[in-house]
Amino acid sequence: MFLTELERFIEEDIGYNDISCSIIPDRIVGARVISKEDGIVSGLSEATQVFDYFDVFAATDFEEGSALKKNDVIFILEGGARSILRAERLSLNFLGRMSGIATLTRKFVDKAKGLRVACTRKTTPGFRKFEKKAVIAGGGDPHRFNLSDAVMIKNNHIAALGLEKAITAAKRAASFTRKIEVEVRDIDSAIYAAGNGADIVMFDNMTPEKIIECISVLSEKGIRENVILEASGNISLENANEYARTGVDVISAGALIHSSRWLDISLRIE
Amino acid sequence: MFLTELERFIEEDIGYNDISCSIIPDRIVGARVISKEDGIVSGLSEATQVFDYFDVFAATDFEEGSALKKNDVIFILEGGARSILRAERLSLNFLGRMSGIATLTRKFVDKAKGLRVACTRKTTPGFRKFEKKAVIAGGGDPHRFNLSDAVMIKNNHIAALGLEKAITAAKRAASFTRKIEVEVRDIDSAIYAAGNGADIVMFDNMTPEKIIECISVLSEKGIRENVILEASGNISLENANEYARTGVDVISAGALIHSSRWLDISLRIE
Amino acid sequence: MFLTELERFIEEDIGYNDISCSIIPDRIVGARVISKEDGIVSGLSEATQVFDYFDVFAATDFEEGSALKKNDVIFILEGGARSILRAERLSLNFLGRMSGIATLTRKFVDKAKGLRVACTRKTTPGFRKFEKKAVIAGGGDPHRFNLSDAVMIKNNHIAALGLEKAITAAKRAASFTRKIEVEVRDIDSAIYAAGNGADIVMFDNMTPEKIIECISVLSEKGIRENVILEASGNISLENANEYARTGVDVISAGALIHSSRWLDISLRIE
Amino acid sequence: MFLTELERFIEEDIGYNDISCSIIPDRIVGARVISKEDGIVSGLSEATQVFDYFDVFAATDFEEGSALKKNDVIFILEGGARSILRAERLSLNFLGRMSGIATLTRKFVDKAKGLRVACTRKTTPGFRKFEKKAVIAGGGDPHRFNLSDAVMIKNNHIAALGLEKAITAAKRAASFTRKIEVEVRDIDSAIYAAGNGADIVMFDNMTPEKIIECISVLSEKGIRENVILEASGNISLENANEYARTGVDVISAGALIHSSRWLDISLRIE
Amino acid sequence: MFLTELERFIEEDIGYNDISCSIIPDRIVGARVISKEDGIVSGLSEATQVFDYFDVFAATDFEEGSALKKNDVIFILEGGARSILRAERLSLNFLGRMSGIATLTRKFVDKAKGLRVACTRKTTPGFRKFEKKAVIAGGGDPHRFNLSDAVMIKNNHIAALGLEKAITAAKRAASFTRKIEVEVRDIDSAIYAAGNGADIVMFDNMTPEKIIECISVLSEKGIRENVILEASGNISLENANEYARTGVDVISAGALIHSSRWLDISLRIE
Amino acid sequence: MFLTELERFIEEDIGYNDISCSIIPDRIVGARVISKEDGIVSGLSEATQVFDYFDVFAATDFEEGSALKKNDVIFILEGGARSILRAERLSLNFLGRMSGIATLTRKFVDKAKGLRVACTRKTTPGFRKFEKKAVIAGGGDPHRFNLSDAVMIKNNHIAALGLEKAITAAKRAASFTRKIEVEVRDIDSAIYAAGNGADIVMFDNMTPEKIIECISVLSEKGIRENVILEASGNISLENANEYARTGVDVISAGALIHSSRWLDISLRIE
Repeated sequence: MFLTELERFIEEDIGYNDISCSIIPDRIVGARVISKEDGIVSGLSEATQVFDYFDVFAATDFEEGSALKKNDVIFILEGGARSILRAERLSLNFLGRMSGIATLTRKFVDKAKGLRVACTRKTTPGFRKFEKKAVIAGGGDPHRFNLSDAVMIKNNHIAALGLEKAITAAKRAASFTRKIEVEVRDIDSAIYAAGNGADIVMFDNMTPEKIIECISVLSEKGIRENVILEASGNISLENANEYARTGVDVISAGALIHSSRWLDISLRIE
Repeated sequence: MFLTELERFIEEDIGYNDISCSIIPDRIVGARVISKEDGIVSGLSEATQVFDYFDVFAATDFEEGSALKKNDVIFILEGGARSILRAERLSLNFLGRMSGIATLTRKFVDKAKGLRVACTRKTTPGFRKFEKKAVIAGGGDPHRFNLSDAVMIKNNHIAALGLEKAITAAKRAASFTRKIEVEVRDIDSAIYAAGNGADIVMFDNMTPEKIIECISVLSEKGIRENVILEASGNISLENANEYARTGVDVISAGALIHSSRWLDISLRIE
Repeated sequence: MFLTELERFIEEDIGYNDISCSIIPDRIVGARVISKEDGIVSGLSEATQVFDYFDVFAATDFEEGSALKKNDVIFILEGGARSILRAERLSLNFLGRMSGIATLTRKFVDKAKGLRVACTRKTTPGFRKFEKKAVIAGGGDPHRFNLSDAVMIKNNHIAALGLEKAITAAKRAASFTRKIEVEVRDIDSAIYAAGNGADIVMFDNMTPEKIIECISVLSEKGIRENVILEASGNISLENANEYARTGVDVISAGALIHSSRWLDISLRIE
Repeated sequence: MFLTELERFIEEDIGYNDISCSIIPDRIVGARVISKEDGIVSGLSEATQVFDYFDVFAATDFEEGSALKKNDVIFILEGGARSILRAERLSLNFLGRMSGIATLTRKFVDKAKGLRVACTRKTTPGFRKFEKKAVIAGGGDPHRFNLSDAVMIKNNHIAALGLEKAITAAKRAASFTRKIEVEVRDIDSAIYAAGNGADIVMFDNMTPEKIIECISVLSEKGIRENVILEASGNISLENANEYARTGVDVISAGALIHSSRWLDISLRIE
Repeated sequence: MFLTELERFIEEDIGYNDISCSIIPDRIVGARVISKEDGIVSGLSEATQVFDYFDVFAATDFEEGSALKKNDVIFILEGGARSILRAERLSLNFLGRMSGIATLTRKFVDKAKGLRVACTRKTTPGFRKFEKKAVIAGGGDPHRFNLSDAVMIKNNHIAALGLEKAITAAKRAASFTRKIEVEVRDIDSAIYAAGNGADIVMFDNMTPEKIIECISVLSEKGIRENVILEASGNISLENANEYARTGVDVISAGALIHSSRWLDISLRIE
Repeated sequence: MFLTELERFIEEDIGYNDISCSIIPDRIVGARVISKEDGIVSGLSEATQVFDYFDVFAATDFEEGSALKKNDVIFILEGGARSILRAERLSLNFLGRMSGIATLTRKFVDKAKGLRVACTRKTTPGFRKFEKKAVIAGGGDPHRFNLSDAVMIKNNHIAALGLEKAITAAKRAASFTRKIEVEVRDIDSAIYAAGNGADIVMFDNMTPEKIIECISVLSEKGIRENVILEASGNISLENANEYARTGVDVISAGALIHSSRWLDISLRIE
């Protein structure tokens, strides 16, 4: 996290004249950051940066993506009482939000053994890089970061240009360093895309049965290995395993981020 | 939302060279933003600002906090195809995240008929003002915005200074325009705070039974009306009603924000 | 002060290519920051931050709000000659401006023995938090920081809604953590406000005699203690004492900030 | 003023959730900005920009630097009631602060008929360009803006390098587009500087008598016209005229900015 | 270009008090932006944005990447004389710098008929997106934008991990949406990379002869079509054609950006 | 360089999730920054700041503006392998771009023995202060930094106002700390400007012969020494010497910046 970002976050949480903390005698105290439930930890370096900013010494035995048990001590802290109180909420907000995402991601990953589980661009405005980092901590794949990263040919492109022209245009316009992904909703499109230079084919809102059928046709035509296959669209913890068994390489779900709740983590001064 | 913020969010989502949108012919098209489930809408002015930025005309019949039914058309849009695609994800991210919070808030409010339901400072770094606005849209109370807003005397203050000194110090240090809130965990502290100038007494992590007992003692002593009473600590949709019936004035729950999932809202080009 | 702010201030004062300082040999020198008149010091931590930024060691025996005598040495400095010259003007601008406000505030406070003296939102754009901090250093009260802090029902509200509706609307709209202040210009409004949930009643541009009369009516009706009473409007050093003796709790004056001149403070290299 | 600056100032004054204005019905109203005392107006374009930002129509018959009489209507406004209330304080803060400086500057200028009156770098951090603009509005000279603008050889330079070396070094290091100014405290230095390439000689903290003597020596030596002569150091409204009559070209005084109080300007909704 | 960027650039060029333009009568005038030599134009939308900011009407018959002849009129302008003078340098700096890059890129593209010509990350700090956009305007490929875009396995990776481990680690760590590029300096590495999942193989600082030999071995082994082949390292306009004829798919050269001079473009007021 | 700038540049080069560097074991390594050709070094402090940011220890024996020979080691580095890779491109981009400008500037300076060689405002948007600093490193003069620095009376001013009025207006409007420069294209204007208060006269796009003639007339009239004489307009390395011998004091050329290519500098990990 850049210092300019960190200061923006601190200003948001503290404001201009923090009375609550200033009336406490500023003696050196110890404190602990404790997980109140099982989960996967994320946001360790962000929390550490917050503590550093306030000159609070923070030691942890965990690494980004480690499993937490209830009552695990994530950080042992030492610093001025006021400083710890000022650092408390922001550091916990990073840990709580990011660990919540990492924890849900790990559940998806466990359901989809062997497959990649990716998130999407459904992220909180201004907080995407932290949310995608939490997905990585949970064992997931961050997918493309923004519109400029990888070219995605969607329904709207195909409606406007036709699939052929859309792929041709994308290949001409995009840098050779970019992958081209095509969203398909039927077998013919999948065949066309896999045979004409798409790097990734995404089955969009298709049933597992339909996906299995598609993959079998691609295999028959000898073009299955040309592309990475991704299933997407309303994939939930409930149906993740079913999609994973269709033979795709990746399942992607906005739910990793938009349906996760925070992990319950708190700070206790000793 | 300030333009400087909006541009930061747009840069995050679009990046430096958006091929995906640029290969589409930029003719004028219509589109609709549709709710795919029931809920409470929030983020209308943010989404409108995003559409405006890209010169997409956006009309809505809803107001911040209106109830949505599945398939309701939140916005009718008209603009260049590329512009709509560029505005799509960011506007939906505001609507989805904020409406999710508003929707969960409304459920809490319904459980706690007649009482205020407040959120906390457990918010996504950098996104607090939007999350608190969504709580308001859902009928909730935004509580204090940051550490400088209202003075909160917590456990740690009392441990360090004793309750008497902490209240005295807070009243001396704080502007007369600020309220002083005291967190209590037992009856004696509640009595002391209510009788010595606290504006708000918060029952922290106490059972409904214990809170009822406290309030009855305060009433007996004729100091119940001196203060606003708030219950806080692990209040969930399940137990909200029980806390609401204890006689407090406000229940507050981080869950409004940290346990909400997004409302499912999508955009369809016609 | 955030580093991002500090760097903005430094850029303003130094520009892109500072010849004046660069032609001096950069040997280590000592220097002193000296008060050239009596006053109250403010801006110590801001000045220290400026010196730190340029790696100038700065030691002071004073605390924010201490009394200064003419010729008192506020800081003893040691550092590179160029660095001290680069830090000089900005650090002195903080000290001069803020100490000027603190000094004038202290004069008001002395006139109003026992009462709070508050400033207003009449502040230099972009510099409010430092000006309000200087008021605190002088023994004053910072009043509300911005429009979102406390709800102020003004003339214009009452003209538009009537006092009853305005108070009702404010209580419904505002968080329970906010105080509601009502500006009044006559006795009836004061009575209504004090009896219907205002936290603060401000006598706006009323004569001391009129205020005394109002307070006596409020007392008779037994609602004097319901509210904090504030006198405001053209209060100057000349009439501050007269207003203070009316029986209000607070007097507020834009003059603390808008009519203060700087304290004369200078830096001498040894 | 850049939009990025304006938004920063608005955020400072309004905060995140302005209840006070939002409870007012947002009907179109008229308003007037009125001067409550005589003075020189400055900040018109800044105030206009603030009004524009809130879609308030603002018309004025005045120009930057015009004379104001008590009760003059500076702006006639029309716009939403909420918008006018939101724009009120910030626009008045610009007008009040800047007109105060312009008014005091004009008084100095009147005392120093025919001479330039310049301010210094004693300005509020972050607000320098507005303060210097107000000096210009009052008929004054903004002097150098920052350390990079013009080269100033001060006491400390001369102490470190000797005057000869300092001038030589400055001429070598500075761009040919920059002027070189030398602070002197005695006749010999003035002679040396005027004869060796200084563009400006500043008499620093010298009495009017001493300055007159210096100028007469320079004239005798035929080098008076080589340089612009500036008097500086504790020049006040009281002694400005005396310094002006010494024969210098410019008098400069930090007092223009650091000793000005605000002009009293207010806004009335009709 | 975001408004926040544009204002930063304008502040850099204009500063706080532009006398030069302000002394000119601000009547409406016409002006022309003229190319003083042949070339490829780039920066049209940036220049247009600058003119818009100053309310100067700007019309052009050219498109990004069009060929310019000496004396071609790129823009016809109409606006206030002061505004045109304020917009002049910044708009020309965009056009001159970006068109210079586009022009040199086009020369490389002409030498390498049929092949892609890519730039690198050797760009002016803070100006990369404009420089890469100019490469695109010239018919080039922008290559990866930053370190997060595509994974590049370089010499240093191979030295530290060995090629096998490096590719394995990259494939595991990178999102499936990213390409993996491997820099090679000998045939064995090229064979290994092409056979083990690299998307792009870059021949780094190899002679054309050596590259031809490598490609022929890859073809024999039937793995030529697995990968995109890129030649890089000291490719200049002189040797570009020779590298293009080796059979690679892309040649990349920092020279597109770091060795281009500006196109000579000027503005004339009529 | 301010930290806020540095972080903006780092974000541009690294992005949000740098896989390439993260797969390398982060052991401490040594590295060298080496010049691959002769030249003048510039950007040393900028590169050092980049290395510092990543905790890479950087030692150099060179000073800004020193001559480099091919294969000279500019920096010896020690730090984590990942950190060095992350710092590499940005530090080299500063060194390469700035040293390229310094090197070309030195060539101009050598051609114009004894005279000042100045650059112009033809600079890369956002990078001007670094480009002008590189000109200084090469022995050149940075000329005015922006429109507010020195007053330049150009053709357009003279066309609009006439030369007399333009000079009068400039002298009245500009601070006494600013120089006034007049662009002339004929002898009469030169005479008028030199005799009426211009500080600098610039011969704009005139032949060396014409300039010699002008200077001889100015000398005859005894006003040659009143002004600094500058030659400008299409001055190149080829004709610089010819212009230098005309008797002007300064030659200025946009080419110093807009026609320089980067110096070839690279980093090798040991």
